[in-house]
Parts: sequence; structure tokens; C-alpha cells
Amino acid sequence: MTRWFARRTGRMTSWTTFSEDPDLISLAGGLPDTSLFGADNHAALLTAMAHRQSALALQYTPTRGMKALRECILEVMAEEATPVDPHRVIVTTGGQQALDLLCRVFLDPGDVVVTEAPTYPGILLPLAAHEAEVVQVETDEDGMRMEALEAALEELRAAGRPVKFIYTVPTFQNPSGKTLSLERRKRLLEIARAFDLPVIEDNPYALLRFEGDPLPTLLSLDEDGRVLYVGTFSKILAPGLRVGWLVAPESVLDKVDLGKQCADLCTASASQLFIAEFFERGDWRGYVRAQVDLYRARRDAMLALLPQTLPAGSRWTRPAGGLFVWVDLPEGMDSDLLYEHALRRSVSIVPGRVGFARPKPTHHDFRLNFSACDEGRIETGLERIALAIRDIEHLGV
Amino acid sequence: MTRWFARRTGRMTSWTTFSEDPDLISLAGGLPDTSLFGADNHAALLTAMAHRQSALALQYTPTRGMKALRECILEVMAEEATPVDPHRVIVTTGGQQALDLLCRVFLDPGDVVVTEAPTYPGILLPLAAHEAEVVQVETDEDGMRMEALEAALEELRAAGRPVKFIYTVPTFQNPSGKTLSLERRKRLLEIARAFDLPVIEDNPYALLRFEGDPLPTLLSLDEDGRVLYVGTFSKILAPGLRVGWLVAPESVLDKVDLGKQCADLCTASASQLFIAEFFERGDWRGYVRAQVDLYRARRDAMLALLPQTLPAGSRWTRPAGGLFVWVDLPEGMDSDLLYEHALRRSVSIVPGRVGFARPKPTHHDFRLNFSACDEGRIETGLERIALAIRDIEHLGV
Repeated sequence: MTRWFARRTGRMTSWTTFSEDPDLISLAGGLPDTSLFGADNHAALLTAMAHRQSALALQYTPTRGMKALRECILEVMAEEATPVDPHRVIVTTGGQQALDLLCRVFLDPGDVVVTEAPTYPGILLPLAAHEAEVVQVETDEDGMRMEALEAALEELRAAGRPVKFIYTVPTFQNPSGKTLSLERRKRLLEIARAFDLPVIEDNPYALLRFEGDPLPTLLSLDEDGRVLYVGTFSKILAPGLRVGWLVAPESVLDKVDLGKQCADLCTASASQLFIAEFFERGDWRGYVRAQVDLYRARRDAMLALLPQTLPAGSRWTRPAGGLFVWVDLPEGMDSDLLYEHALRRSVSIVPGRVGFARPKPTHHDFRLNFSACDEGRIETGLERIALAIRDIEHLGV
Repeated sequence: MTRWFARRTGRMTSWTTFSEDPDLISLAGGLPDTSLFGADNHAALLTAMAHRQSALALQYTPTRGMKALRECILEVMAEEATPVDPHRVIVTTGGQQALDLLCRVFLDPGDVVVTEAPTYPGILLPLAAHEAEVVQVETDEDGMRMEALEAALEELRAAGRPVKFIYTVPTFQNPSGKTLSLERRKRLLEIARAFDLPVIEDNPYALLRFEGDPLPTLLSLDEDGRVLYVGTFSKILAPGLRVGWLVAPESVLDKVDLGKQCADLCTASASQLFIAEFFERGDWRGYVRAQVDLYRARRDAMLALLPQTLPAGSRWTRPAGGLFVWVDLPEGMDSDLLYEHALRRSVSIVPGRVGFARPKPTHHDFRLNFSACDEGRIETGLERIALAIRDIEHLGV
């Protein structure tokens, strides 16, 4: 058995995102509400796709992705005010594959990757697989603190440790819901330039903005080709299609292309053509707006209920978009224990430790999702969490 | 940049499988003829799927795969006379992902993998990515020669070199079209037992049998849990869905599951449910039979034309199923050169060198596919190959 699997398996935390139990309310997974799309709409698009290009939808297609889909990607990038050269795009099997392939391309064992604290739990898996050292930089309400980033990079340089890239989810971050301010975006790129580092911008959520003005992507601010941009249809359309993309310089794309040939040859043609059909015949911007309205109302419902749900001294983020609220319980309250007791009460959360490469002995933080459940289930779920909190208080922890 | 990408890129051979050029006849790719499925049939199944479970088809689903799909996989395995415990199955994004994940689980740099000469070109990519040493064992008309395998393993053992697994496509092999005899299947397992090695059985083609009796899978002959079986819907149904599977002991599955979480979180739900819909409402065995009839006729057409296409002294395989014929040109004829000149004549083949981890300076062998083109295009394609052969003969090579 290879090294990392043998070593790492025992260190992985798993948590309940999917369950067959219909009574379980999941406030855990980062799931959009795919019932909004509508079965009739879905069926009509699939029928049109099959009648137009059945054989192609069932066939292998190029590793880089289908031309029709690349045009949809350019539309999404335009909506992000980020014009992109289509030759700099590769289609991937969800954004996750783009992250995994970038780890494959960049990382040797012992390399350092710098990211937020907490970070997207799904990046920690390929980082562990490629035996990277993860340095996590503290955040405040405006995202990653730039003085802390600079200090960390200087310390690493002084220690002669090779940093390979900075990984960030700048907008409505997973898991914290925080957004990097415009000033910090510019500063981040200056720091990356000063240390000559690539920046991986993972941007699944920015179009799910509930209020306020959009911020420019790092890619749109990038002047020297150091930002590698990961996008996905998972949150603006449907994760079950498994379609994402990477925007990168040709030198990186060539290597990612080879990595993708190793990994799965090509992304599902049927998924790519379905998206192209939707972009041609449907109103994808309208669908994003409908999701925004839905999730805003659910966020509001959750934020309104948190004061009565959580014990005094708790703090939480108030995200202006995306899917997540990040909660800090008062000192002394263990979020792993809460996770366990919440599950017994048939509600799931994501314990905070999964956002850290080196979790602390005790975590007080956890992630709540507000997109997947309607207001009634959010209310019931939070009531169960309140009961689970009482359970662990009674344990005297 | 990480080591292998920097090192390996220059050593990769790429070849034309997909082309926008409608005049190009591809006898290269391993493509089933997906037009056989039928647009109306396709549309009806998709409509039924969307009406029954639209939201689920668009949603994340478990990394291990959906329950409904696992039942289809058990049906296919039963058709292969190989009963399987459903808890030993993980769904993958095509068979390719299963191979890549197994390489991730098993391989450290410098490990040795033993396989046929030639081997599936797509296994050489992840083997290179994981910096494995590949030892290829000669084959004859009955597949890998067991004396040669044993000798190779003994030599490796004597040299103290760590072999991690044997990789084989025992039935209608890609690229050679050869099939391992029953006697050799049993012997292969004995040898694997003697050297205590896992065997990866990659079995995409066995149900595409044109004549003769089916042979047992290695997995069905396995008595001590050393066979890891990779299956796929790509060749019996549609590669554009990107759905395959791995059957393995729980200890391996746990690790592959983690690797799949790194790689893409889950396989496209829409693809999984489409297959389940087809297995429930359609006649998948009938569809396999229809493909068998189609490809048998195309194989016959190709085999009938090869004597007049190829120069005297050429040899080729006569596969009893699958998708490929393997050609050996006479000494002195360079298949790389043929590949180039064939492309100029608007026909593509797969040059033999891509089946070898360490290609020879000159290769005389190449692969032909007979499943993707109808008899008329096969005939035209072979006429162009005959012209390309004349071109390179005139070069005096």
C-alpha cells in the first residue's frame, strides 16, 4: 500500500452528508436545492438534447471539454466580469477534479500550501494525498488577514521551505461564509507577486450573492498570469452533473490535460450537452436569481433563529451570499461532541475540525448550511441543535 | 512543478482520436457506435428519469455510488457469471478512474507493475504519473505467456525489486484483441498466489463476444481475494456517461473511496440514474446483443479486407470479440510513419508504441478499431491506409 493512504486514513474525519434516514435534517452538506429546477423543465431539456445529439451525448468527447460547453463557461465568466480566452479553459469533473489535478501538477511531498483558516475541507484531501504541508492563515470578517499571510510567507522563506501556491475561496468562503475585501484582493496579488507564487482562486459561490455589489475575481485583477481559476456548475446549476472548469496558462493546462487523461479521459458528455442545451434554450441567469431569492430567505430564517438556538457567548458569520454560516461556540463547548449529539437528535452539522489540516484538540466551531432545507426544516433542525446543545451542557463538558 | 509532469510530458505520444474534420475516418479510438442506441429511446428514458427523480439526478450523491446503480452492476456481473457482494463495489467515473485510483492506493515511486506487451495505453498514464516501473510480458494468440510471466517475477524477486500488482485485460484485450485462455487464467492466479500479488482484471469487453463460449473472469476463479476487478458501462452502453466500477476487498475500497473523494467527490448522478432507468425499463442484454451483431459484421468486413490492404508479410489478430485488431507490419515498415501518412490521407490509427512503457526505436505494430465505423467507412478507411502504406514504401523506409 502506498504511503499516504496508509498514514492518512486514520487521520481523516468523516461526517454525515448523505443519509438514507428521511427523518434526518442535514444542515451539513453544501447542497443546492435542486428541486427548484423542476422536473418538467429538466425533462424538456433532456428530450431536446437527446433528439438533437443522442449519439454524441453517449460518446467519448475531448479531454479539454466540448466546444458548446466552453461557450457556456465564457458566459458565466462574463457574468463574473472576467473575460477569458477560451483556449485557457479545460473542463473538469466538478471543481473538485480541477483542485485534485492542480495538486498533481504542482505538489511534491513536503511542499507547502498556504490557505485560509478554516479552509474548504475538500482541498485538504488532495493536499494530504500529495503529502503537502498546509499552513493556514487567520481570517477576520474581511477574509484572510494580509499581514498574517505576509508574515507566514516570510517565515517560510526564512526557513527555506518551498511554498507552491496559495489556495483561497475569496467569496462566500466554504466553510466560513466570509468574503475577501477588494483592498485585500489587490494586496493578495501584490504579495503573491512579491513571493512569485501562483494563486488558486476557487470560486463556486460568487454568483449566489444576496446583497451588496459584486467584487472582482482575483483572475480579473491578475496582471501577470499567476491566478489559476476554478469554477463549477455545481452551485449555480447542479452538482449531480459533475461539471467544473479551470482557467490557467497554457503551460499548466497541458499538464492538467495529461492528468485528466489519467484520471477519467473526459467529463461526462451527457452532462456537458445538457448544460449547453440549458444555456441555449433556458434562462440560466434567471435560474441563478431564483436560487439567490430562495437561499436569501433561508439564510434570513437561519440568522433570525440562531440567537435563540445557540448559547450565550456564541458568535457566527452573516454571509452576504453562498451556502454557509460559520459558528463559534463559547470556550468549553466541544463541536465534535455537538456533532455527535446532534446526529442522535437527527440533525447533522459539519464539525469545525474538518476545515483544518492540523485540528486543535478541541474545536468550538462548526458549519451550518442553509440552502438545502426550506424554512420549516431549518427551524426544526435548529430546534434539535438547541436540544443537542442542552444535552452536552448537561454532560458538564 | 511536480516531478513526473516535468519529466514525463515529453515522453508522451498523443494521437488523433477526436477530430472536427468530418472527412477524417477514425479507425483509432476505442469508440462504440452510440448511434445504435437511438435518439427516441434515449429521450424517452431521460424523460422518465427526470419525471421520477429530477432533484436527485441533479444532486450530489454518495461517493460509493447510488444503490439503484449498484443493482445494475450486479446484473452485469451476473451476466459475466461472477456473483459479487454489493458491499464490495464502488462506482467510478469510468473504468479509467478505477485504474487511476488503484495506482494511487498501491504505488510508490519505483514500484514495479507487470502487464502484457502491448498493454492498454490508458494504464500507462497513471503508471507514469505514479512513477512506477512497468515490466511487460510477451503474449501469443492465447494472451500473456505464463512461463514468461513467472520468469519475469522470479527475476524481479531475485533483484529485490518490489512488484505491487499484475495488470491485465484478459478478454479481447486492448490493444491486441487477444484473449487469455482458461488454462492460463488458472495459472495466472496460481502464479499470483505464489508471489502473493494482487491482480487487476480490467474487463470492459468480455460481453462483446462474437463467437465461442464465454470464459470465466479471473474474479470468479479467485479463491483468496487477490483479484481487483474493474468494469465499465462504456463499452456495453455508453462512454459519454462516464460510469464504471471497481470490485475489491473492503480494505482496498476504503482507500479508494478516500481517493475518489479527492478526485471528484462522486460520479455524475444523472448518469447513474439514467443507467438505472435503462436497466429497469429497457432491455440492456438485447442492446448488448445488437452491438455484438453490429461489431461482428464490421470485424468480418475489416478482416476480409486486410489481406488486400496490408503488405505481404503482415500479420494480424482475429479477435473473437471486443473492438480491436492488432497489426504487425513486416520488418522495415515503421508504424509511426504510417500513422503520420495515414493522417495525411484522412484516416487515423493508433501507432503500436503507445502500448509500451519503453517503446522500441522503431515500431511495426498498430491498432485498428472496427466498432465505430460502418462497413463502407471501414472499406474507405482501409483503402486510404493502403495508399499510406504505398506512400511510405515509396519513401524507401
